[in-house]
Amino acid sequence: MSIQPALRTSCEIAGYSFDEFVEMVRRFHGYEAPGLLIGGFMVGMALEQLPANILYDAISETRTCLPDAIQLLTPCTFGNGWLKIAPFGRFALTLYDKTRGDHKGVRVFLDHRKLIAWPEIYAWFFKLKSKESTRHSITDEIKDAGEAILGIQRIQVAGEFCVKHHNGKIGICPKCDEAYPVRDGDLCLACQGNEMYL
Amino acid sequence: MSIQPALRTSCEIAGYSFDEFVEMVRRFHGYEAPGLLIGGFMVGMALEQLPANILYDAISETRTCLPDAIQLLTPCTFGNGWLKIAPFGRFALTLYDKTRGDHKGVRVFLDHRKLIAWPEIYAWFFKLKSKESTRHSITDEIKDAGEAILGIQRIQVAGEFCVKHHNGKIGICPKCDEAYPVRDGDLCLACQGNEMYL
Repeated sequence: MSIQPALRTSCEIAGYSFDEFVEMVRRFHGYEAPGLLIGGFMVGMALEQLPANILYDAISETRTCLPDAIQLLTPCTFGNGWLKIAPFGRFALTLYDKTRGDHKGVRVFLDHRKLIAWPEIYAWFFKLKSKESTRHSITDEIKDAGEAILGIQRIQVAGEFCVKHHNGKIGICPKCDEAYPVRDGDLCLACQGNEMYL
Repeated sequence: MSIQPALRTSCEIAGYSFDEFVEMVRRFHGYEAPGLLIGGFMVGMALEQLPANILYDAISETRTCLPDAIQLLTPCTFGNGWLKIAPFGRFALTLYDKTRGDHKGVRVFLDHRKLIAWPEIYAWFFKLKSKESTRHSITDEIKDAGEAILGIQRIQVAGEFCVKHHNGKIGICPKCDEAYPVRDGDLCLACQGNEMYL
Protein backbone atom coordinates (compact mmCIF):
# COMPACT_ATOMS: atom_id res chain seq x y z
CA MET A 1 0.00 0.00 0.00
CA SER A 2 1.38 3.39 -1.05
CA ILE A 3 1.72 6.23 1.43
CA GLN A 4 1.54 9.89 0.39
CA PRO A 5 3.31 11.69 3.23
CA ALA A 6 3.75 15.45 3.31
CA LEU A 7 7.25 15.98 1.96
CA ARG A 8 9.47 17.72 4.44
CA THR A 9 10.97 20.93 3.18
CA SER A 10 13.92 21.01 5.60
CA CYS A 11 16.76 18.72 4.67
CA GLU A 12 17.20 17.19 8.10
CA ILE A 13 18.21 13.53 8.08
CA ALA A 14 17.04 11.49 11.07
CA GLY A 15 17.89 14.31 13.47
CA TYR A 16 21.13 15.41 11.78
CA SER A 17 21.68 18.37 9.48
CA PHE A 18 22.62 17.40 5.92
CA ASP A 19 26.19 18.64 6.47
CA GLU A 20 26.52 16.66 9.71
CA PHE A 21 25.34 13.55 7.89
CA VAL A 22 27.82 14.15 5.04
CA GLU A 23 30.60 14.26 7.65
CA MET A 24 29.35 11.01 9.28
CA VAL A 25 29.30 9.39 5.83
CA ARG A 26 32.87 10.50 5.08
CA ARG A 27 34.17 9.11 8.37
CA PHE A 28 32.39 5.76 8.12
CA HIS A 29 32.18 5.05 4.40
CA GLY A 30 35.31 6.92 3.24
CA TYR A 31 33.67 9.34 0.81
CA GLU A 32 30.31 11.04 0.22
CA ALA A 33 28.79 8.35 -1.98
CA PRO A 34 25.57 9.61 -3.65
CA GLY A 35 23.77 6.37 -2.80
CA LEU A 36 24.55 6.78 0.86
CA LEU A 37 23.44 10.42 0.97
CA ILE A 38 20.14 9.49 -0.70
CA GLY A 39 20.01 6.52 1.68
CA GLY A 40 20.10 8.93 4.61
CA PHE A 41 16.89 10.58 3.39
CA MET A 42 15.40 7.11 2.82
CA VAL A 43 16.11 5.98 6.39
CA GLY A 44 14.81 9.29 7.75
CA MET A 45 11.57 8.96 5.76
CA ALA A 46 11.08 5.37 6.93
CA LEU A 47 11.67 6.27 10.58
CA GLU A 48 9.08 9.05 10.39
CA GLN A 49 6.39 6.66 9.16
CA LEU A 50 7.20 3.86 11.60
CA PRO A 51 5.11 3.71 14.81
CA ALA A 52 7.01 5.25 17.73
CA ASN A 53 8.65 3.06 20.36
CA ILE A 54 8.75 -0.20 18.45
CA LEU A 55 11.75 -2.46 18.01
CA TYR A 56 12.51 -2.89 14.33
CA ASP A 57 14.76 -4.84 12.04
CA ALA A 58 16.02 -3.56 8.69
CA ILE A 59 16.38 -4.99 5.20
CA SER A 60 18.45 -3.50 2.41
CA GLU A 61 17.55 -4.75 -1.09
CA THR A 62 21.04 -3.95 -2.35
CA ARG A 63 24.54 -4.58 -1.04
CA THR A 64 25.68 -1.12 -2.15
CA CYS A 65 25.63 2.00 0.02
CA LEU A 66 22.19 1.57 1.61
CA PRO A 67 23.42 -0.86 4.29
CA ASP A 68 25.73 1.90 5.56
CA ALA A 69 22.89 4.47 5.75
CA ILE A 70 20.95 1.98 7.88
CA GLN A 71 23.97 1.25 10.08
CA LEU A 72 24.71 4.95 10.62
CA LEU A 73 21.16 6.04 11.45
CA THR A 74 19.48 3.08 13.18
CA PRO A 75 20.46 0.50 15.83
CA CYS A 76 20.54 -2.14 13.07
CA THR A 77 24.01 -3.31 12.02
CA PHE A 78 25.23 -6.23 9.96
CA GLY A 79 27.11 -7.68 12.93
CA ASN A 80 24.19 -7.57 15.39
CA GLY A 81 21.90 -9.29 12.90
CA TRP A 82 19.22 -6.59 12.89
CA LEU A 83 20.19 -5.58 9.35
CA LYS A 84 19.64 -8.19 6.66
CA ILE A 85 20.59 -8.01 3.01
CA ALA A 86 18.20 -9.18 0.29
CA PRO A 87 20.58 -8.86 -2.67
CA PHE A 88 18.01 -8.04 -5.35
CA GLY A 89 19.83 -5.00 -6.71
CA ARG A 90 16.81 -2.76 -6.05
CA PHE A 91 17.57 0.57 -4.41
CA ALA A 92 15.13 0.12 -1.52
CA LEU A 93 15.12 -0.45 2.22
CA THR A 94 12.58 -1.70 4.72
CA LEU A 95 12.18 -1.20 8.46
CA TYR A 96 9.68 -3.54 10.13
CA ASP A 97 8.36 -4.33 13.59
CA LYS A 98 10.24 -7.34 14.92
CA THR A 99 8.40 -7.82 18.21
CA ARG A 100 4.86 -8.43 16.98
CA GLY A 101 4.30 -11.45 14.81
CA ASP A 102 2.93 -9.63 11.77
CA HIS A 103 6.23 -7.98 10.74
CA LYS A 104 4.53 -4.84 9.45
CA GLY A 105 6.63 -1.89 8.43
CA VAL A 106 7.54 0.58 5.72
CA ARG A 107 9.56 0.24 2.54
CA VAL A 108 11.24 3.28 0.96
CA PHE A 109 12.60 3.19 -2.58
CA LEU A 110 14.19 5.57 -5.03
CA ASP A 111 11.39 6.28 -7.52
CA HIS A 112 12.96 6.49 -10.98
CA ARG A 113 9.84 8.24 -12.32
CA LYS A 114 10.61 11.24 -10.09
CA LEU A 115 14.20 11.63 -11.30
CA ILE A 116 13.41 13.55 -14.47
CA ALA A 117 13.73 16.85 -12.60
CA TRP A 118 17.14 15.90 -11.17
CA PRO A 119 19.58 15.32 -14.04
CA GLU A 120 22.69 14.63 -11.94
CA ILE A 121 20.92 12.03 -9.82
CA TYR A 122 19.33 10.51 -12.94
CA ALA A 123 22.75 10.23 -14.61
CA TRP A 124 24.28 8.65 -11.50
CA PHE A 125 21.41 6.20 -10.95
CA PHE A 126 21.40 4.97 -14.54
CA LYS A 127 25.21 5.09 -14.79
CA LEU A 128 25.36 7.60 -17.60
CA LYS A 129 28.45 9.42 -16.23
CA SER A 130 31.70 8.38 -14.61
CA LYS A 131 31.78 8.45 -10.80
CA GLU A 132 34.36 11.22 -10.73
CA SER A 133 32.49 13.58 -13.04
CA THR A 134 29.36 13.07 -10.98
CA ARG A 135 30.59 13.39 -7.42
CA HIS A 136 30.94 17.13 -6.94
CA SER A 137 27.75 18.46 -8.45
CA ILE A 138 25.44 15.70 -7.31
CA THR A 139 25.74 16.31 -3.57
CA ASP A 140 23.96 19.68 -3.85
CA GLU A 141 21.26 18.14 -6.04
CA ILE A 142 20.67 15.36 -3.49
CA LYS A 143 20.39 17.97 -0.74
CA ASP A 144 17.84 19.93 -2.77
CA ALA A 145 15.86 16.87 -3.82
CA GLY A 146 15.62 15.35 -0.33
CA GLU A 147 12.55 13.11 -0.15
CA ALA A 148 11.11 14.37 -3.46
CA ILE A 149 12.72 11.48 -5.37
CA LEU A 150 11.52 8.76 -3.00
CA GLY A 151 8.48 6.51 -2.78
CA ILE A 152 7.16 4.81 0.35
CA GLN A 153 4.86 1.83 0.93
CA ARG A 154 3.43 0.04 3.92
CA ILE A 155 4.52 -3.57 3.74
CA GLN A 156 4.37 -6.82 5.66
CA VAL A 157 7.48 -8.99 5.55
CA ALA A 158 6.89 -12.72 4.98
CA GLY A 159 7.50 -14.70 8.17
CA GLU A 160 10.07 -17.04 6.68
CA PHE A 161 12.31 -14.08 5.92
CA CYS A 162 12.25 -12.96 9.57
CA VAL A 163 13.38 -16.24 11.15
CA LYS A 164 16.53 -15.82 13.22
CA HIS A 165 19.16 -18.41 12.47
CA HIS A 166 21.25 -19.51 15.40
CA ASN A 167 24.48 -21.39 14.98
CA GLY A 168 23.59 -24.12 17.49
CA LYS A 169 26.22 -26.46 18.88
CA ILE A 170 29.88 -25.58 18.29
CA GLY A 171 32.48 -28.25 17.47
CA ILE A 172 36.07 -28.37 16.26
CA CYS A 173 36.68 -29.01 12.55
CA PRO A 174 39.03 -32.03 12.27
CA LYS A 175 40.69 -30.55 9.18
CA CYS A 176 41.49 -26.91 10.12
CA ASP A 177 41.23 -27.38 13.91
CA GLU A 178 39.00 -24.33 14.28
CA ALA A 179 35.60 -24.00 15.93
CA TYR A 180 32.52 -24.14 13.65
CA PRO A 181 28.76 -24.82 13.87
CA VAL A 182 28.40 -28.62 13.76
CA ARG A 183 25.12 -28.32 11.85
CA ASP A 184 27.28 -27.49 8.82
CA GLY A 185 28.52 -31.10 8.61
CA ASP A 186 31.57 -33.18 9.50
CA LEU A 187 33.90 -30.39 8.37
CA CYS A 188 33.48 -26.62 8.55
CA LEU A 189 32.12 -24.96 5.41
CA ALA A 190 35.56 -23.60 4.47
CA CYS A 191 37.08 -27.10 4.57
CA GLN A 192 34.21 -28.45 2.46
CA GLY A 193 35.96 -27.13 -0.65
CA ASN A 194 35.38 -23.41 -0.11
CA GLU A 195 38.73 -22.37 1.32
CA MET A 196 39.69 -18.98 -0.08
CA TYR A 197 43.38 -18.94 0.85
CA LEU A 198 46.15 -20.16 -1.46
CA MET B 1 52.31 -19.36 7.68
CA SER B 2 52.00 -18.75 11.42
CA ILE B 3 53.31 -15.56 12.99
CA GLN B 4 54.51 -15.38 16.59
CA PRO B 5 54.24 -11.69 17.41
CA ALA B 6 55.21 -10.28 20.79
CA LEU B 7 51.90 -10.04 22.66
CA ARG B 8 51.13 -6.52 23.68
CA THR B 9 50.60 -6.09 27.40
CA SER B 10 48.58 -2.89 27.18
CA CYS B 11 44.98 -3.40 26.23
CA GLU B 12 44.86 -0.70 23.59
CA ILE B 13 42.64 -1.51 20.62
CA ALA B 14 43.68 0.07 17.31
CA GLY B 15 44.50 3.36 19.03
CA TYR B 16 41.57 3.39 21.46
CA SER B 17 41.58 2.48 25.14
CA PHE B 18 39.53 -0.62 25.98
CA ASP B 19 36.88 1.53 27.71
CA GLU B 20 36.65 3.88 24.72
CA PHE B 21 36.16 0.88 22.44
CA VAL B 22 33.44 -0.56 24.72
CA GLU B 23 31.60 2.76 24.42
CA MET B 24 31.97 2.74 20.59
CA VAL B 25 30.60 -0.81 20.57
CA ARG B 26 27.59 0.14 22.71
CA ARG B 27 26.72 3.06 20.46
CA PHE B 28 27.07 1.16 17.17
CA HIS B 29 26.10 -2.41 18.04
CA GLY B 30 23.66 -1.74 20.89
CA TYR B 31 25.43 -3.70 23.63
CA GLU B 32 28.93 -4.88 24.55
CA ALA B 33 28.81 -8.20 22.75
CA PRO B 34 31.77 -10.43 23.76
CA GLY B 35 32.45 -11.36 20.14
CA LEU B 36 32.75 -7.71 19.18
CA LEU B 37 35.10 -6.87 22.07
CA ILE B 38 37.33 -9.82 21.15
CA GLY B 39 36.95 -8.71 17.52
CA GLY B 40 38.44 -5.34 18.47
CA PHE B 41 41.64 -7.04 19.63
CA MET B 42 41.61 -9.16 16.47
CA VAL B 43 41.42 -6.13 14.18
CA GLY B 44 44.10 -4.36 16.23
CA MET B 45 46.43 -7.37 15.97
CA ALA B 46 45.86 -7.65 12.22
CA LEU B 47 46.53 -3.93 11.65
CA GLU B 48 49.83 -4.15 13.55
CA GLN B 49 51.09 -6.94 11.31
CA LEU B 50 49.95 -5.38 8.04
CA PRO B 51 52.53 -3.36 6.10
CA ALA B 52 52.06 0.38 6.71
CA ASN B 53 50.44 2.59 4.08
CA ILE B 54 48.74 -0.08 2.01
CA LEU B 55 45.11 -0.11 0.94
CA TYR B 56 43.40 -3.21 2.24
CA ASP B 57 40.12 -5.04 2.02
CA ALA B 58 38.64 -7.12 4.83
CA ILE B 59 36.97 -10.51 5.08
CA SER B 60 34.96 -11.76 8.04
CA GLU B 61 34.48 -15.54 8.14
CA THR B 62 31.33 -15.16 10.22
CA ARG B 63 28.25 -12.97 9.96
CA THR B 64 28.18 -12.43 13.72
CA CYS B 65 29.87 -9.56 15.58
CA LEU B 66 33.21 -9.53 13.73
CA PRO B 67 31.87 -7.49 10.78
CA ASP B 68 31.08 -4.69 13.23
CA ALA B 69 34.61 -4.73 14.73
CA ILE B 70 35.97 -4.34 11.20
CA GLN B 71 33.51 -1.55 10.37
CA LEU B 72 34.31 0.35 13.59
CA LEU B 73 38.10 0.15 13.35
CA THR B 74 38.97 0.14 9.64
CA PRO B 75 37.79 2.01 6.52
CA CYS B 76 36.10 -1.22 5.36
CA THR B 77 32.31 -1.27 5.58
CA PHE B 78 29.66 -3.56 4.16
CA GLY B 79 28.16 -0.72 2.13
CA ASN B 80 31.42 0.43 0.50
CA GLY B 81 32.26 -3.12 -0.53
CA TRP B 82 35.66 -3.24 1.18
CA LEU B 83 34.31 -5.69 3.77
CA LYS B 84 33.23 -9.08 2.45
CA ILE B 85 31.56 -11.88 4.34
CA ALA B 86 32.65 -15.50 3.85
CA PRO B 87 29.90 -17.15 5.92
CA PHE B 88 31.87 -20.18 7.13
CA GLY B 89 30.99 -19.78 10.81
CA ARG B 90 34.67 -19.57 11.78
CA PHE B 91 35.59 -16.80 14.19
CA ALA B 92 38.32 -15.27 12.04
CA LEU B 93 39.02 -12.17 10.00
CA THR B 94 41.46 -11.26 7.27
CA LEU B 95 42.88 -7.95 6.07
CA TYR B 96 44.70 -8.12 2.73
CA ASP B 97 46.43 -5.80 0.30
CA LYS B 98 44.00 -4.88 -2.45
CA THR B 99 46.26 -2.82 -4.66
CA ARG B 100 48.95 -5.35 -5.53
CA GLY B 101 47.85 -8.40 -7.43
CA ASP B 102 49.02 -11.00 -4.93
CA HIS B 103 46.37 -10.21 -2.27
CA LYS B 104 48.73 -10.97 0.62
CA GLY B 105 47.66 -10.19 4.15
CA VAL B 106 47.06 -11.48 7.66
CA ARG B 107 44.36 -13.66 9.14
CA VAL B 108 43.55 -13.49 12.87
CA PHE B 109 41.44 -16.16 14.56
CA LEU B 110 40.26 -16.98 18.05
CA ASP B 111 42.45 -19.96 19.02
CA HIS B 112 40.27 -22.36 21.02
CA ARG B 113 43.39 -24.11 22.36
CA LYS B 114 44.31 -20.94 24.26
CA LEU B 115 40.92 -20.60 25.95
CA ILE B 116 41.54 -23.07 28.77
CA ALA B 117 42.89 -20.28 30.99
CA TRP B 118 39.83 -18.11 30.36
CA PRO B 119 36.73 -19.93 31.63
CA GLU B 120 34.17 -17.20 30.89
CA ILE B 121 35.35 -16.76 27.31
CA TYR B 122 35.48 -20.54 26.87
CA ALA B 123 31.91 -20.90 28.15
CA TRP B 124 30.71 -18.12 25.85
CA PHE B 125 32.54 -19.42 22.77
CA PHE B 126 31.27 -22.96 23.16
CA LYS B 127 27.80 -21.77 24.27
CA LEU B 128 27.90 -23.43 27.69
CA LYS B 129 26.10 -20.53 29.45
CA SER B 130 23.19 -18.27 28.66
CA LYS B 131 24.05 -14.88 27.19
CA GLU B 132 22.72 -13.02 30.23
CA SER B 133 24.71 -15.00 32.83
CA THR B 134 27.84 -14.45 30.77
CA ARG B 135 27.69 -10.80 29.85
CA HIS B 136 28.85 -9.03 33.01
CA SER B 137 31.85 -11.10 34.06
CA ILE B 138 33.20 -11.79 30.58
CA THR B 139 34.04 -8.20 29.67
CA ASP B 140 36.78 -8.03 32.32
CA GLU B 141 38.14 -11.39 31.22
CA ILE B 142 38.29 -10.24 27.59
CA LYS B 143 40.13 -7.09 28.68
CA ASP B 144 42.66 -9.18 30.64
CA ALA B 145 43.08 -11.79 27.89
CA GLY B 146 43.61 -9.27 25.07
CA GLU B 147 45.60 -10.91 22.29
CA ALA B 148 46.56 -13.95 24.41
CA ILE B 149 43.63 -15.97 23.04
CA LEU B 150 44.31 -15.16 19.37
CA GLY B 151 46.30 -16.75 16.59
CA ILE B 152 47.62 -15.00 13.49
CA GLN B 153 48.79 -16.26 10.08
CA ARG B 154 50.15 -14.69 6.94
CA ILE B 155 47.81 -15.61 4.09
CA GLN B 156 47.25 -14.98 0.40
CA VAL B 157 43.64 -14.65 -0.71
CA ALA B 158 42.71 -16.51 -3.89
CA GLY B 159 42.22 -14.11 -6.79
CA GLU B 160 38.68 -15.26 -7.64
CA PHE B 161 37.53 -14.19 -4.18
CA CYS B 162 38.87 -10.65 -4.70
CA VAL B 163 37.07 -9.88 -7.96
CA LYS B 164 34.87 -6.79 -7.68
CA HIS B 165 31.39 -7.34 -9.03
CA HIS B 166 29.81 -4.36 -10.71
CA ASN B 167 26.12 -4.16 -11.42
CA GLY B 168 26.54 -3.13 -15.04
CA LYS B 169 23.68 -1.70 -17.07
CA ILE B 170 20.54 -0.63 -15.17
CA GLY B 171 17.05 -1.26 -16.55
CA ILE B 172 13.47 -1.07 -15.31
CA CYS B 173 11.81 -4.31 -14.21
CA PRO B 174 8.53 -4.65 -16.19
CA LYS B 175 6.82 -6.32 -13.21
CA CYS B 176 7.63 -4.08 -10.20
CA ASP B 177 8.61 -0.98 -12.24
CA GLU B 178 11.81 -0.50 -10.23
CA ALA B 179 15.38 -0.17 -11.45
CA TYR B 180 17.56 -3.31 -11.37
CA PRO B 181 20.77 -4.69 -12.95
CA VAL B 182 19.72 -6.09 -16.34
CA ARG B 183 22.33 -8.86 -16.10
CA ASP B 184 19.94 -10.49 -13.58
CA GLY B 185 17.48 -11.35 -16.37
CA ASP B 186 14.20 -10.13 -17.84
CA LEU B 187 12.82 -9.43 -14.38
CA CYS B 188 14.59 -8.24 -11.24
CA LEU B 189 15.67 -10.97 -8.81
CA ALA B 190 12.83 -10.13 -6.40
CA CYS B 191 10.22 -10.59 -9.15
CA GLN B 192 11.82 -13.90 -10.18
CA GLY B 193 9.97 -15.59 -7.31
CA ASN B 194 11.94 -14.16 -4.40
CA GLU B 195 9.63 -11.38 -3.26
CA MET B 196 9.64 -11.22 0.53
CA TYR B 197 6.56 -9.05 1.06
CA LEU B 198 3.05 -10.47 1.61
